[in-house]
Amino acid sequence: MDGMVHVYTGNGKGKTTSAIGLAVRAAGAGLNVYIGQFAKGRKYSELNSLERLDNIDIEQFGRKKFIKNSADKLDIKKAEKGYEKIKNILNSNSYDLVILDEANIAVYFDLFTVDQLIDLIEDRNKKIEVVLTGRMADRKIIEYADLVTEMKEIKHYYNDGITARKGIEN
Amino acid sequence: MDGMVHVYTGNGKGKTTSAIGLAVRAAGAGLNVYIGQFAKGRKYSELNSLERLDNIDIEQFGRKKFIKNSADKLDIKKAEKGYEKIKNILNSNSYDLVILDEANIAVYFDLFTVDQLIDLIEDRNKKIEVVLTGRMADRKIIEYADLVTEMKEIKHYYNDGITARKGIEN
Repeated sequence: MDGMVHVYTGNGKGKTTSAIGLAVRAAGAGLNVYIGQFAKGRKYSELNSLERLDNIDIEQFGRKKFIKNSADKLDIKKAEKGYEKIKNILNSNSYDLVILDEANIAVYFDLFTVDQLIDLIEDRNKKIEVVLTGRMADRKIIEYADLVTEMKEIKHYYNDGITARKGIEN
Repeated sequence: MDGMVHVYTGNGKGKTTSAIGLAVRAAGAGLNVYIGQFAKGRKYSELNSLERLDNIDIEQFGRKKFIKNSADKLDIKKAEKGYEKIKNILNSNSYDLVILDEANIAVYFDLFTVDQLIDLIEDRNKKIEVVLTGRMADRKIIEYADLVTEMKEIKHYYNDGITARKGIEN
């Protein structure tokens, strides 16, 4: 059976963590997992744990600081490098599950176009399961995907002035 | 600072996986994590991975088959055992993050009451961060929690007659 295309989007918590959880589940079933993170270059705490699991590989294609208003040349260059790398991975037989973390954000900030993202996924080895995360998923991606979950913020303590904490938010 | 209370609910995918992802992130930051799973007794694939991470402990307080219509005596007995175990854990200094997977389902199926669940959390060592997962979160839990995310199903391939797959859904 062909692999499915999942999207986790919305303004709520749990998009990247659920992709990480899925990676951990898949690895536990003996599947090989690749995680490519767009627009992120910071060493999040989960990387320390994931490095200890043999069949999960993770690479980052962004800068330490998250893009604020608009991307610059370096942001785009890093994303392009990721795009080419992931194209090879999606055309190989090396992985069963490929997670494109913040792919929606990459499109939102014009690091590449939504059509380029769909081409990337569409031209893959179809056995591969693909997961895309990030807020502001483009309508074309929602239409293209097999499974879409919106993480909807109902209540959030950031709203009360509490800032991100190590091991919980990052 | 006191630990927060998170809830992941809704009919969409990603509730348990995001709790698992959060556990992996917290463990990567050197925090100690306990995961208690209500209404689950089956060896999900993620357990194989989590067993390899030193500072994550996981225990199950349910049966292999998920409760279908209503709980019976054995379901309740297993949940009560979990409740007592978790009460001790939440009053100790052993863990920084405690995940009560399917706690909402436990309330929904009357394995314990919503007031009992709130007492359990309210009476804890307040340094501990708590995460509750499961559909049908009770309104009292939503009100009580600091952070609530609804995983909302926008599109799902189960709807097309495809069944759960090892490493992806379980």
